[in-house]
Parts: sequence; C-alpha cells; structure tokens
Amino acid sequence: MKYTFGVDIGGTTVKIGLLDTDGTILEKWEIKTDKSNSGANILPDVAKSVLDKISEKKIDKADVCGIGIGVPGPVDSQGVIHNAVNLGWGTFNVSEKMAELTGFKCHTGNDANVAALGEMWKGGGMGYSDIVMVTLGTGVGGGIILGGKILDGSTGAGGEIGHIHVNDDETIPCGCGNFGCLEQYASATGIARTAKEMLDKWDKETVLTADDTSAKAVFDGVKAGDELCINVAKAFGDVLGKGLATIAGVVNPEAFVIGGGVSKAGEVMLGYVKPSFDKYVFKGASGAKLVLATLGNDAGTIGAAKLVL
Amino acid sequence: MKYTFGVDIGGTTVKIGLLDTDGTILEKWEIKTDKSNSGANILPDVAKSVLDKISEKKIDKADVCGIGIGVPGPVDSQGVIHNAVNLGWGTFNVSEKMAELTGFKCHTGNDANVAALGEMWKGGGMGYSDIVMVTLGTGVGGGIILGGKILDGSTGAGGEIGHIHVNDDETIPCGCGNFGCLEQYASATGIARTAKEMLDKWDKETVLTADDTSAKAVFDGVKAGDELCINVAKAFGDVLGKGLATIAGVVNPEAFVIGGGVSKAGEVMLGYVKPSFDKYVFKGASGAKLVLATLGNDAGTIGAAKLVL
Repeated sequence: MKYTFGVDIGGTTVKIGLLDTDGTILEKWEIKTDKSNSGANILPDVAKSVLDKISEKKIDKADVCGIGIGVPGPVDSQGVIHNAVNLGWGTFNVSEKMAELTGFKCHTGNDANVAALGEMWKGGGMGYSDIVMVTLGTGVGGGIILGGKILDGSTGAGGEIGHIHVNDDETIPCGCGNFGCLEQYASATGIARTAKEMLDKWDKETVLTADDTSAKAVFDGVKAGDELCINVAKAFGDVLGKGLATIAGVVNPEAFVIGGGVSKAGEVMLGYVKPSFDKYVFKGASGAKLVLATLGNDAGTIGAAKLVL
Repeated sequence: MKYTFGVDIGGTTVKIGLLDTDGTILEKWEIKTDKSNSGANILPDVAKSVLDKISEKKIDKADVCGIGIGVPGPVDSQGVIHNAVNLGWGTFNVSEKMAELTGFKCHTGNDANVAALGEMWKGGGMGYSDIVMVTLGTGVGGGIILGGKILDGSTGAGGEIGHIHVNDDETIPCGCGNFGCLEQYASATGIARTAKEMLDKWDKETVLTADDTSAKAVFDGVKAGDELCINVAKAFGDVLGKGLATIAGVVNPEAFVIGGGVSKAGEVMLGYVKPSFDKYVFKGASGAKLVLATLGNDAGTIGAAKLVL
C-alpha cells in the first residue's frame, strides 16, 4: 500500500491527513499554527508531525508518495509562495523547504486551488476534469481546475474570482480596496449586509431581525417561505449567477462546485443562482453544471494529497 | 531544415503558410473556401494545395513536422469541431480527417485561439507564456494561452470573451442572443454605434458625421483632439478595461494582446483602456501588461503551425 500526506495550512490550525492513493483519508489530525517569528516554525512543526506519524504507524518511507501542501496565499507553479500575510511568510519555495525537512517529494498550491482539486478528485466535482470551485464563506474564494490541473495564474492569482467587478454603484470598499467586487454580495458577509439593508426598508412581517440577518437565517427563512428572505436570496442569486456566467465565458468549465458556509443551505441556494446563470451565460458555455461541494473541511487535505500523485 | 504548414480556414478564403520551425513564414498563399456541399471539399482542397506545394518546392516529406489548422468554430482538445456554421460543417475530427488526406500529423484549434498562440509565439505576446488575446473586429474574439497551451474549454468555448456580460441596461440583443455583451461596446461595430448615439445628442463641433462614425474615424478624431471622439474612446476604454480586469481576476495572465481592426489605432487606443483596467483589476492580478498584436492576418497561420511543434 502507498500513502500520501495532505497538509492544509490555515491561520489558526494546520490540518493534516494521511491518505491512500485513492484519496481515502486513513487518519486526520490538526496541529496549531505557530505564527511567532514570522511563521518560521510552521513547516518544521508540520514536518515533525508527519515524520512522527510515519514512525507511529510503522510506515515504510519508500511507500510514501509525497506531501502536498495548501497555503493561504499566492503560489506559483514552482511552489514559491509570494507573501502569505496570514502566516507572516514572505517569499520562498515551500515545496523545496518541506522536501529538505522531510526527504519526501513535496508540492504546494494555494489553499483555495488545492480545495478545488480535492472537490474534483473526490467531491462534488468527481467525474469532471474542468471545474471552477467557488467558496462562499466570510469572503468568496475560488479555484480553477482545467484538464485536472490547477490554474495557478502567472502570479498565483488564478481563480481569485471573489474580486471580479460586478457593481458600478458600490460606495463601500471591498477588503481588497476595490469597489463592487463579487465578494461584497455573494459571501456570507455580503448576504448578511444585503439582508440588513433590505430589512431596514421592510415594513411587512419577516423572520429576520436586526440581530440576525446572517446567511443561515436568510436561507432558513427562504425554506419557510419568508418573502423578505426570498428577495435577499434573489439578489444574491442574480449577482452570483451573473458572475459565474462571466467566468464560464472565459474558461468554459464542465461544472461549478459551490462550497463554503453559504452552500450548507443546499440545493435551494443553487435554485436562486441557476436562473441568473442561464440568463447571462454565453450559449457555447452554457452546459456547465452547478453542483454543491461535498468534502467540507477535508477538501484541502484531500486536494493537497492529490498534488503529489 | 524542417517545415510546418499553418492553415487558417475562413469563411471566404483559406490562408496557408509554409514555415520553418522557428515560425518564419517561407511562403504564404490563399485558396478559395468552397462551401458547397456542406463544405465537404474544404479539407481535400487544402490537402491538395499542401501536397502540391511540397512537390513544387521538392520538400522531403520526412522533413514536414505536420499541419496545424485553425477553424472558425468550437474545437475540443482532441481536434473535434462542433458545428462551424460559417463553413457548413457539423461535428467531426478535423485533425484525423486531414491526417488521412495527407499522411502528416495534424492538430486543429479554434481560429481565435490559434491566432492567440501565434501572437504568443512570434507577435505582441512574444516572451510570455500566459496571455489573453483580444481581437477587436466586427465582433470581439478571444483566445487564452496558459503555460504556452491553448485553453480550449470543456466544449471549445474557452476564451469566448466577447460575450461576457458587462451592461445590465442594454435593450438591443447581441448577435449571440444575450443583452449587454462586451462585444456590443468594444468591437468596431460597437464603437461605431456608441459614436452614433453620442453624435445624435452632440451640439458642438466634431469631425464625426452621420455617414462615418466608424472606429477608425473615432480614433482619427481622438488623435486630432476632437472632444466627441475622446468621449467615445473613453466609453469604449471604460467598458473594455473593466472586462479585461474581470478576465485578469479569473486567469491572471502576464499580458493582454489586443488585435483586430480597432487595434490599428495603436497605443492611443490602449491609453483609454489602461486607466479602467487599473481601476477595476484585483491587485494580485494587476501586473498584466496591455500590448498590441503585431502579426495581423498572419497570426492564424503562424499559430496553426505552432500547434504541431
């Protein structure tokens, strides 16, 4: 039996998985992300954890295919990270460093791109080789897989679809500094903000309250038939569908895989995105399916493991 | 010396080039596109023309690397065309058919994608491997090259950027059936239409006339300091820059190579696109250069030749 390790480095914890070469997680665990000293201990800590696991499980090192790593920042196709502000890292070759520390073959990718690879391999995108993963969480993340390979982009910003421009009239800046980014409307934060704005002008009954206009409250309300919530969901779906239609016209994927906290609303959420997507998409690219991500927090470790296979 | 043939099949003529393996055109000529009988004669005519040239030049067949073909329609990565309406073609494998007819290795791509490959190899995109080619002609065509390879897309619609949605308020349909496509504003046709609309409301002096609001007249006027023309160019540049910024956020190229009739206006045209691009682009992808295409009508044959190398 052959093994791979998948490592998903986040700002608070590092998720590590021991997998077989079919993508089944045999064991998974977390270690704390030590951000002290500009994050200098992070990779040594991961290396130690992996090597300890190999000893503990009495795995023959010759049976380890390698270590895949997802990191929160722009990574080029050579494995060089260009400033991971969340970790305190500057610019260096993560793959080389990890290979030095462990003796194994290592490959590194941006965490969102790596999660996309995981969803293609074992999740909502299984059976496809050209997908766009859209993660609707605090922000909107993205990863593009074409022909089974990550689209890194020339400076590691491939698939950063949360920051495509969708609204000329926005007056509040996005976290990135621009105005009118997709993330400002389609993230959990964006949905809550739209709901708050609509609630302020609403004079009929609704389940939403000034204390809770969260994306979860909105989609719970949608399921209960709440009119205001349905309006919020329509506004969300219109913007996101239009954004996905644009992306379809650029990279023409087989499927969009929608993940992140907002996707927990399930198929009902997709139902608000699809009509807008169908309306705006170029016909030649209109066959793309909209599907839900299925791997949750495991997408990162599974995708990372796939990097070395 | 080794040779390649580049074939650029259009609705009226087929451009054929004999090239060396460095991408230099040694000879180029055209044959008529025979669209009778659902275009059944097109490939046999091309095959005969290529084989005749080989005889005429006394080229040893062993020195021919192959034949690359650009066709006006969606082509998948296997060389299968899916309806080329301009030629009367349905669905079949162009590469296989041409290989049968000639005995040479053949590769086929969409004409806009192949032109993009040509510009990357020997034109405005030389030195880059990740480019987006934007052809501003009667319509807006596009081709995306990543890592030196064409992004075909899952159904051959990769890089069809003329039909990304940029205007919610459009009431006139695009040729594709949608409303508010980039092509409706950034093509030569779109510029002429914007100019006409602005001219109708203009009560000051201008070089534009109801008879000539063409893109050429507009940019000639810009160079002469005409205020109305400058307004038209600003409107064009704002829309195109915003569209390119969106594309940059998806595929993060090193450069956009702008070609087609509108690009003959030269650097002055890019000067209207750049401020809008800079305003809307995600910072992580903002390094992309805007450059002019340089190969003109030869991009298709040169790019086609590159397909087989």
